[in-house]
Amino acid sequence: MAKIIHDPAEMQRTSEVARKEGKRIGVVPTMGCLHEGHLSLVRAARRRTDFVITTIFVNPTQFGPAEDLNRYPRDIERDTSLAMGAGTDCIFAPEMRDVYPEGYSTFVQVERLGEALEGRSRPGHFRGVATIVAKLLNITKPHVAVFGQKDAQQVVIISRMLHDLNFGVELMVMPTVREPDGLAMSSRNSYLTPAQRREAPVLYQSLQLAERLIASGETSSATVLGAMKELIMNHSSGVVDYVSIADGVTLEELLECKVHRPILVSLAVRFGSTRLIDNITITL
Amino acid sequence: MAKIIHDPAEMQRTSEVARKEGKRIGVVPTMGCLHEGHLSLVRAARRRTDFVITTIFVNPTQFGPAEDLNRYPRDIERDTSLAMGAGTDCIFAPEMRDVYPEGYSTFVQVERLGEALEGRSRPGHFRGVATIVAKLLNITKPHVAVFGQKDAQQVVIISRMLHDLNFGVELMVMPTVREPDGLAMSSRNSYLTPAQRREAPVLYQSLQLAERLIASGETSSATVLGAMKELIMNHSSGVVDYVSIADGVTLEELLECKVHRPILVSLAVRFGSTRLIDNITITL
Repeated sequence: MAKIIHDPAEMQRTSEVARKEGKRIGVVPTMGCLHEGHLSLVRAARRRTDFVITTIFVNPTQFGPAEDLNRYPRDIERDTSLAMGAGTDCIFAPEMRDVYPEGYSTFVQVERLGEALEGRSRPGHFRGVATIVAKLLNITKPHVAVFGQKDAQQVVIISRMLHDLNFGVELMVMPTVREPDGLAMSSRNSYLTPAQRREAPVLYQSLQLAERLIASGETSSATVLGAMKELIMNHSSGVVDYVSIADGVTLEELLECKVHRPILVSLAVRFGSTRLIDNITITL
Repeated sequence: MAKIIHDPAEMQRTSEVARKEGKRIGVVPTMGCLHEGHLSLVRAARRRTDFVITTIFVNPTQFGPAEDLNRYPRDIERDTSLAMGAGTDCIFAPEMRDVYPEGYSTFVQVERLGEALEGRSRPGHFRGVATIVAKLLNITKPHVAVFGQKDAQQVVIISRMLHDLNFGVELMVMPTVREPDGLAMSSRNSYLTPAQRREAPVLYQSLQLAERLIASGETSSATVLGAMKELIMNHSSGVVDYVSIADGVTLEELLECKVHRPILVSLAVRFGSTRLIDNITITL
């Protein structure tokens, strides 16, 4: 039976005790509404550590003013049951007032990396992400933190933060889990109308197209990005927010697809008021 | 014999081992050039904890472009010997390249509190302070961190950061240590010419004047601040950067000296290119 902890100080004490007992702690930070993607992270933590903590907190500081904070899906009982089924030892689900009490003023910012891609469409988003992750790491004191490759930029930024601020926490990144038709699992998929849901696999199809084009020798990013956009526009009602071919480490846009470091091909597409993201990494 | 550690990873492992052995760790972050003020912090840590770490690092991110980073005094051998004499178990003196390696991009910012007083004269200063303190805490993993009241605003900001980011570290604040003539001990006192040094006690005298005026019933901050400035100008060549009467918690300027919370009376004065600060806290 997994323990559910709401109080940050109690969570901190629990982790402190586990560490003193010589246990390795793994943490899986989530905003709840767990799906197979999250559960794959919990299972990965289970395999690698002795004490698995799944955190559930819909973090307001990473939502923009016009974003979907209030309609973001919440179901703590279902989440608890799923996380337990995947092997979590402990759920940490703090209250808003305990995470951001009155007078809260401290923020962690990863410069440059947070300004590209998602950061351009969602100003302040990664400042909120870096801040809550720093807090959750200080509360749960893990040896390993597990994140999904689905949020590729988040992974790059958290990796940078862990290193820069000397957290001494190992970052474990797990592959994106997809529906049978290729759509990346996301809590936001539940917003899609049936018609939008039928169209949504076009995101992954456009990434696969990019991979094929680059593999067959196309080196012009503009050509690849153009083909991706055309595919999306011709086969869905989705509105492209961005498509990008960037250096997988620095997130700088690449004009040519022929570097030796991993290339991050990523995109964001709106279906009505629902914004979906996806990405693949290509190593040439 | 105190251990001297330069490598952050080694320091982290050392602290991890000490914690597993059940030791309480105290850290005293310094920029070196240790004086009696610092040593009082080391002694305080010695009384309260089992494993005392003194960190020595002249942190470039808290210096402005026109400030005294390059001429800031450094003498690691003398510092080590003094810190050992005061009871430190371990000196952590990292190299610049290990603290801020190439590509470093993460900063911790405490909003509002960092913009008043010193922050107005030294933009970015407290962002640098909060960032290095966060890093040093993650590296040294202390139970208790000891700071001096001499840097009053720094103490308020670090207290906020520890709480906001859930560091789980206790903040211990020790009183300002003064020379026999009242001048607050500071590494920067060594920059003063003999004539400036003779005048410098006027800072503390003006704070004592403020205390007397407020104790005798003066409630107008303007009157008190005016008297302080007059004293400094009439008895020294010092140029007042600011004098301030502020709420000791929020650092908001007070028009009247009659709140119930601690009042922070603080000032910064330049003698030539040397800038000195001092403060007292008054509880009515």
